[in-house]
Amino acid sequence: MTTKKLGRQTAALANPPSLAGHANVVGKKEGEGPLANSFDYIGADDSFGEASWEKAESAMQKQALSLALEKAGQPAAAMDWLFAGDLLNQCVSSSFAARGQDIPFFGLYGACSTMGEGLALAAMTLDGGFGEWAGVVVSSHFCSAERQYRTPLEYGAQRTPTAQWTVTGAGAAILAREGPGPYVTHVTVGKIVDRGIRDTNNMGAAMAPAAYETLKAHFQDTGRSPGYYDLIVTGDLGRLGSELLEELFRQDGVELAGRHNDCGLLIYDLEGQDVHCGGSGCGCCASVLTGYLLNGMRQGLWKNLLFCPTGALHSPTTAYQGESVPGICHAVAISAEK
Amino acid sequence: MTTKKLGRQTAALANPPSLAGHANVVGKKEGEGPLANSFDYIGADDSFGEASWEKAESAMQKQALSLALEKAGQPAAAMDWLFAGDLLNQCVSSSFAARGQDIPFFGLYGACSTMGEGLALAAMTLDGGFGEWAGVVVSSHFCSAERQYRTPLEYGAQRTPTAQWTVTGAGAAILAREGPGPYVTHVTVGKIVDRGIRDTNNMGAAMAPAAYETLKAHFQDTGRSPGYYDLIVTGDLGRLGSELLEELFRQDGVELAGRHNDCGLLIYDLEGQDVHCGGSGCGCCASVLTGYLLNGMRQGLWKNLLFCPTGALHSPTTAYQGESVPGICHAVAISAEK
Repeated sequence: MTTKKLGRQTAALANPPSLAGHANVVGKKEGEGPLANSFDYIGADDSFGEASWEKAESAMQKQALSLALEKAGQPAAAMDWLFAGDLLNQCVSSSFAARGQDIPFFGLYGACSTMGEGLALAAMTLDGGFGEWAGVVVSSHFCSAERQYRTPLEYGAQRTPTAQWTVTGAGAAILAREGPGPYVTHVTVGKIVDRGIRDTNNMGAAMAPAAYETLKAHFQDTGRSPGYYDLIVTGDLGRLGSELLEELFRQDGVELAGRHNDCGLLIYDLEGQDVHCGGSGCGCCASVLTGYLLNGMRQGLWKNLLFCPTGALHSPTTAYQGESVPGICHAVAISAEK
Repeated sequence: MTTKKLGRQTAALANPPSLAGHANVVGKKEGEGPLANSFDYIGADDSFGEASWEKAESAMQKQALSLALEKAGQPAAAMDWLFAGDLLNQCVSSSFAARGQDIPFFGLYGACSTMGEGLALAAMTLDGGFGEWAGVVVSSHFCSAERQYRTPLEYGAQRTPTAQWTVTGAGAAILAREGPGPYVTHVTVGKIVDRGIRDTNNMGAAMAPAAYETLKAHFQDTGRSPGYYDLIVTGDLGRLGSELLEELFRQDGVELAGRHNDCGLLIYDLEGQDVHCGGSGCGCCASVLTGYLLNGMRQGLWKNLLFCPTGALHSPTTAYQGESVPGICHAVAISAEK
């Protein structure tokens, strides 16, 4: 068999799976941002009819999956596998959303990189010959994340200038072994990178080195240069992390600016929406990918996209124990043609 | 291509990956139990030289992976992928253990079923043509789990009769595309099953229906009967959950007793070690598999083994919010011959 592994970190899909359906569900604030038109459902009050923020997040995930299945024209029962994850302790948004869905289930934890991890595993599984259809769904919710990672909203805590705003959003993608595209052609799976950042209110700085390493590995493994892509879009580095990423490449003599953007910058109006350094959370890049980015590809805006979700793999406990914040980034190459 | 999917939930590996190396690291109590001889390293005081239980758990995971790599005769740099998970919030034992390991990383959350999820994904990835080697490592630690899920040990809380004891243990397995076996031949991926059990001190009852559904699916998908296997070993149903599983099959006219055992029953002396219903935690079935079970297969004790880790996908938050405990079980068929 021809190897489908390129270099150290990249899987090259022999028969690239097609993104057959994609949808998202977001909160009120996201619906007031610049990408409003690209969202499938915008909640009126972020509760999504549920009695707790955690249940609201689970409801969003369920709805995003259901909308994506509808767009793919498939029932849940057609899915061979479901890959899902979120930020909550024990990934309960995902487990409770998948409960009753009747799909063989893989729970993932990759912090805000989970959409990339899920797309990678779904694509490799289908390309490996294991079934015809796979779903990927991830979420985050501002209110459940604040309560868990920082302080309950009622405390009215101040945010530092480097802080990012956790997106209330869920994104789902349905992959098919055969279809008209867009196609997942390559995935570069991240290694954990830790440059010793200890400020948990500065996730951009913690994750930028991981994005740099994964992008560098992707270019090396595939022999492509940044210029191959019409758009390189990181997950949620935000303003500061994006600057750091571009600066790291600049030191190598590579200019990303102009070709690089970040879902955390795209999803909000940074000046008008009081989000400091931008958006974050699993739902940030997931809702930008499944709306603005993939819709744009279908409209012919971009032919080759490199989608690079980033995650910070720490916890409040590790921070209390004085640990730094390990980062990870997965790069998923999506192309209009095989 | 011949389909490698059997029925609704089962992946049949076309070229079954070989378990090239496996090792475990456990705590003092586990080292005093009946499987003592099957453990590669037994800690003297469960701290593993670290300043916190969370860091101790991470250290165990790192050591288990290192010992498994040694047995496989491979450096970490030879691993194409690492699949890892644990029970801690944000799966930090795994992230911090994998930091600096220089291996492309997939973080998993499947509660105590994680070893099964990891073996499934590692086997499918290699069989799919993506690389030659994959590592799987998972862990749990009694003290970090008690602090997080129940109460800090210092409170001296009473345990209910149905409670299980979280195993302090880490298990690692190295899979190779080619090798002399034992082989992972089939994986049946679980759906989430929730029968409404709300008692978080009765995990066996919450997980038994998931084990029943996955085993039933495995037999249906593969056309095998329980008699095909020399041993069917569930993850950590414990005494009560094991009885429930056997009873559920008995109602279908199928007798598992005599052929079925449970890692939660094997790892401790239930009468002498004050563990109530038995062991639990990701590290329970992982340390039993990577020692007693796989060593036994190598010694010719069993030819065909069905390894079925079970997980309870709840969190303290979902319990506080009155939710029931969703369960999952993955079945991994391991055979001495291809």
